[in-house]
Amino acid sequence: MAKSPETEHPQKAIGWAARDNTGTFSPFHFSRRETGADDVTIKILFCGICHSDLHCARNEWGVTNYPIVPGHEIVGTVTKVGNNVSKFKEGDKVGVGVLVASCQKCESCQQGLENYCPNMILTYNSIDRDGTKTYGGYSDLIVVDQHYVLRFPDNMPLDAGAPLLCAGITVYSPMKYYGMTEPGKHLGVAGLGGLGHVAVKIGKAFGLKVTVISTSPKKESEAISKLGADAFLVSSDPAKVKAAMGTMDYIIDTVSAVHSLAPLLGLLKVNGKLVTVGLPEKPLEVPIFALVGGKLHN
Amino acid sequence: MAKSPETEHPQKAIGWAARDNTGTFSPFHFSRRETGADDVTIKILFCGICHSDLHCARNEWGVTNYPIVPGHEIVGTVTKVGNNVSKFKEGDKVGVGVLVASCQKCESCQQGLENYCPNMILTYNSIDRDGTKTYGGYSDLIVVDQHYVLRFPDNMPLDAGAPLLCAGITVYSPMKYYGMTEPGKHLGVAGLGGLGHVAVKIGKAFGLKVTVISTSPKKESEAISKLGADAFLVSSDPAKVKAAMGTMDYIIDTVSAVHSLAPLLGLLKVNGKLVTVGLPEKPLEVPIFALVGGKLHN
Repeated sequence: MAKSPETEHPQKAIGWAARDNTGTFSPFHFSRRETGADDVTIKILFCGICHSDLHCARNEWGVTNYPIVPGHEIVGTVTKVGNNVSKFKEGDKVGVGVLVASCQKCESCQQGLENYCPNMILTYNSIDRDGTKTYGGYSDLIVVDQHYVLRFPDNMPLDAGAPLLCAGITVYSPMKYYGMTEPGKHLGVAGLGGLGHVAVKIGKAFGLKVTVISTSPKKESEAISKLGADAFLVSSDPAKVKAAMGTMDYIIDTVSAVHSLAPLLGLLKVNGKLVTVGLPEKPLEVPIFALVGGKLHN
Repeated sequence: MAKSPETEHPQKAIGWAARDNTGTFSPFHFSRRETGADDVTIKILFCGICHSDLHCARNEWGVTNYPIVPGHEIVGTVTKVGNNVSKFKEGDKVGVGVLVASCQKCESCQQGLENYCPNMILTYNSIDRDGTKTYGGYSDLIVVDQHYVLRFPDNMPLDAGAPLLCAGITVYSPMKYYGMTEPGKHLGVAGLGGLGHVAVKIGKAFGLKVTVISTSPKKESEAISKLGADAFLVSSDPAKVKAAMGTMDYIIDTVSAVHSLAPLLGLLKVNGKLVTVGLPEKPLEVPIFALVGGKLHN
């Protein structure tokens, strides 16, 4: 008979699990594997809440294997390392993101793009190499191969740094890849949730002019006073949207609700760049006259 | 009383006009302006038939002002030039594309990107600077400002070269802009109509491996024997599509019918590039897990 989650491994753990699609969580006793030669065992101190966690907890993508312990923006301190581990020692501040293993053989892995590995193992709701299920960071400890553990600088607050592990890289990576980093250029950030708030701060760090685009006027003070955005555009105000047409060099669209891309494309300059990183449950509508880079005309 | 199309200008012309959305054409007597100081008058010898012509003739974009004389892939020989014209002389082989005027003052015009000028005047179905309607290349002569006239090399056949003026530039421009030109890389060309057939030839000229992706198995011989494509993929054959997953560096999607982008995105390698240039009448469906550059995973 297969062992239970609580007894299948030697290290006892406790987490918050969703056991069905109602969106409620309850305490869950499970276990983590022994610290292997390449492993780092981490005492989890903080974990970000990503919208993907909510999608998965409620089975909105149809792939959830209950019980599920979400959490892939994990930060904490190292409590134990295996014999082959030289990069980390007890007490180090570390983070773990969306994946905890990959094949290390494919072209993507060879290029350091493990997130494209077809055989990668996600931090939760995946089957690990030993056949047991992976559980995420809504828990008190985790054991991870050192290759998938990141060092946090000593001066970075762990609580505030946690969202960099998914929300942060999700906006930073395409901004770098598509060259949306030229100081003085105008960035629109659509949506001011988990991804959007990090995009504002990263945009300002790149030296961009940042305008938050949101349906919620009440978010203006958060955008400007708290996060340092330069401007705030209420997307439901046609006059203000019209005045902003053709003024943006880049837009990063973090909205995870179903929405049309047409109004955003209209805000771009010629050859502007729109990057979409939200994951709505239904396909996005792309207007007929605009899909590729910036504005098209009729 | 306003003059009629036949008498409003001094140079008599005849063309084929659509007078309603039935898709039928009939002879149409109209006129062209006198050859101005900056103008080139062209005897039209050939004109490509673009799908946009059909959309407009049938008023499928809702902006048609009947009668309409389509045609914006115009080639012919110069018969007369104005006093300021030094670039062209009588007898030159020339072409005219989608636009016949622009403001020459805006940022786009200053950069030679007149096609993005908000005040550009299209070759047909637009109102010209003198208040009269523009009529296109399904006709015997046209008068165009020299700035919007292109020289054809003497050794280029005018009939075969005509499609370069719209279909050609429509696929060439994004391939250059997005760097889809590296010799040896694998290009997928979705759809083998007016745009697709030019994309195949341009792809081969860049030294790419070209696979035509089509719903019509009967187009295989045209793709390979006539146009020089390396391979042919029937997009309705799930087994063949599956085998081709993740094999393409670039895809240029020329399909003007409504279709989903999901199967095309699956054909791309990681960080592959998909450019969409067709104009369906309805928005395209973009899958939730893939909009930006190449494949995304769950």
